[in-house]
Amino acid sequence: MISDQMIQLVSGSSAIRAMFEEGKRLSAIYGAENVYDYSLGNPSVEPPLEVKETIIKLLENEEPNFLHGYTSNSGYEDVREAVAAHLNKKYNTNFDYQSIVMTNGAAAALNIVFKCILNPGDEILTFAPFFTEYRNYVASYGCKLVVVPANTETFEVNFEEFEKLISPKTRGVLMNTPNNPSGVVYSEETIKKIAAVMEEKQKEFGTDIYLISDEPYRELVYENIEVPYVTKYYKNTFVAYSFSKSLSLPGERIGYLAANPEMADYEKMVAALSVANRVAGFVNANSLFQRVVPYCLDLKVDIEIYNRNRIDLYNKLTELGFKCVKPVGAFYMFPQTPIEDDVAFCNAAKEFNLLLVPGAGFGCKGHMRLSYCVSHDTIVNSFPAFEKLAEKFIK
Amino acid sequence: MISDQMIQLVSGSSAIRAMFEEGKRLSAIYGAENVYDYSLGNPSVEPPLEVKETIIKLLENEEPNFLHGYTSNSGYEDVREAVAAHLNKKYNTNFDYQSIVMTNGAAAALNIVFKCILNPGDEILTFAPFFTEYRNYVASYGCKLVVVPANTETFEVNFEEFEKLISPKTRGVLMNTPNNPSGVVYSEETIKKIAAVMEEKQKEFGTDIYLISDEPYRELVYENIEVPYVTKYYKNTFVAYSFSKSLSLPGERIGYLAANPEMADYEKMVAALSVANRVAGFVNANSLFQRVVPYCLDLKVDIEIYNRNRIDLYNKLTELGFKCVKPVGAFYMFPQTPIEDDVAFCNAAKEFNLLLVPGAGFGCKGHMRLSYCVSHDTIVNSFPAFEKLAEKFIK
Repeated sequence: MISDQMIQLVSGSSAIRAMFEEGKRLSAIYGAENVYDYSLGNPSVEPPLEVKETIIKLLENEEPNFLHGYTSNSGYEDVREAVAAHLNKKYNTNFDYQSIVMTNGAAAALNIVFKCILNPGDEILTFAPFFTEYRNYVASYGCKLVVVPANTETFEVNFEEFEKLISPKTRGVLMNTPNNPSGVVYSEETIKKIAAVMEEKQKEFGTDIYLISDEPYRELVYENIEVPYVTKYYKNTFVAYSFSKSLSLPGERIGYLAANPEMADYEKMVAALSVANRVAGFVNANSLFQRVVPYCLDLKVDIEIYNRNRIDLYNKLTELGFKCVKPVGAFYMFPQTPIEDDVAFCNAAKEFNLLLVPGAGFGCKGHMRLSYCVSHDTIVNSFPAFEKLAEKFIK
Repeated sequence: MISDQMIQLVSGSSAIRAMFEEGKRLSAIYGAENVYDYSLGNPSVEPPLEVKETIIKLLENEEPNFLHGYTSNSGYEDVREAVAAHLNKKYNTNFDYQSIVMTNGAAAALNIVFKCILNPGDEILTFAPFFTEYRNYVASYGCKLVVVPANTETFEVNFEEFEKLISPKTRGVLMNTPNNPSGVVYSEETIKKIAAVMEEKQKEFGTDIYLISDEPYRELVYENIEVPYVTKYYKNTFVAYSFSKSLSLPGERIGYLAANPEMADYEKMVAALSVANRVAGFVNANSLFQRVVPYCLDLKVDIEIYNRNRIDLYNKLTELGFKCVKPVGAFYMFPQTPIEDDVAFCNAAKEFNLLLVPGAGFGCKGHMRLSYCVSHDTIVNSFPAFEKLAEKFIK
């Protein structure tokens, strides 16, 4: 008596589960240090020490029924105020505490936006390659995720297809920059073009179309790349942010949603988001980590550790003949598979104890995702395995 | 462009919001100590000291990327194992780690059950008076909450109506014991009768009907009352539990769902629950508090503090002529309003700086909810206000 939707979702999840089981099986046979697991996006760099120090300070000094108590569904007002001030200073935006909803990570932020803007049958549009979970989130509201095919040369937006697929049913455009899985960061020019298309289509259709920017990797960028702040380019914009990667706290589920004060129906929208946070079962983002946030807004993990992995792995793979758009953000890269069938290729890689994820799940066949949030030893020790893989499929 | 469902939900929430604003307004005029706010279920007794000590010990000793990392969507296996062992020892049940899904509080536990068992158009049945949020949770899955009218003499189950309303569309029966708002605890006899009705109806309709017991107040009982463990009486049972009240950690959103291993499709169900936790946006219950759980399973807040409030407030109200079923659990009581119109009565109470919640929202007009999780001073200082209220409406 399991619901029809969950039967589908469970069967869709079996590939990830199978990968996880395969990793355990290989580790049992060859030892964990001889299995090169590039399948998981679980941060490997330690949180800044200030996180621990702040928690202890709060526990020692705050009244416990306040520290661990229910907060307003949108979060403590002073915490939201601190987030708004931080963003305003850093990006010259004009948020106030009302614009900020503290959430159970970016996943919750996306879900409350969808709950607030989607009627059954509506569409959310996104750009391939995209985080696999988007499809499931949108399905929860009886809606469809429409995928703009990838521009596989650059993983920038395929504007020709974008303009074709955006329709009167499109309630939102969901983008993810820095991107999981490609590691690409959208330039200011790209964002301006997205905004221009959306402005035009809003006028054409007489609808509000929201731009939803999923930004858990905002702080993880390399080569002095800048990540433009999207609310400056388009009024109907939400930004979903998480401290999961910037502070290496993915299990703590702490993030926020920023709603552009210039959006349509702003006052009603922020009221609706608060109620959505409650009725979706999140109630409020966990209170202790909410109170940690104001002390850690200017901190981030040591990204030079990820950067070294990025450079060394990218150089090795391209040297071996793999084709790959150079990633400049997040901790993923997304090379082409040397054969068209990415699932078959990733299965073959397991023979060399390499765990890679087929691109198909990200809406982009013929590619594979590597999460390089692993130890540098894993990177270096995996090179002989990649050499054998290249020998078999490339040379 | 806010979704139709959210427009309804926001308008339904405005009463709570108005109450909150009224509290702020009255406090500003008369001073917070002269406003007797019985409207909120926010625990007032401090968490056991061991919670703080455990967090600090974990921060000092555990590897931070493990402590704050993603967990399996159902939670750390050793934590789930500890919960199962605790329940088995205390209630002679037969859970193992797979039966337990760590959740973002009981609210999340209920939501993932609904996501797993409900197809649009299905029904969940519950007994009045009931926690207002149930209606919103069920609506999220395109389903209807069917309310069995209250037995207002005892607030035990109205079996005549229950048998009439349970139907082939009923996918679940949702009960809440100790009950919010009545403070009643269902006896073993009541639970046996509920189970017997459900067994019979399952056979009659050829369906699985799940019993879902929402138990955030399980540890808050007085007068040596026992709260029977429901899985022992009915196979298709889920228990939604939370540490929000037992440890006074409501803001931390930590709880679990226990699924009876004897239920239909058990293996498939636990797999589905795990996926549901992920795709609903919870991802995993927050990792730090998951790891606190094994150290605090045998602890609870000092309930004698609530008990004193319960006795003193109940005695005063009944002495003044209010009619009330004596509460033996949770931290609420649910007296009759002396006039039929509970909304008008609660509005009148505001004149005496008393904030009470009308029963209508709990599916039970002509009553009012008082949350006595306040300081004992508030209880005692509010007596003159209740006297004036009684003088106006009772004598």
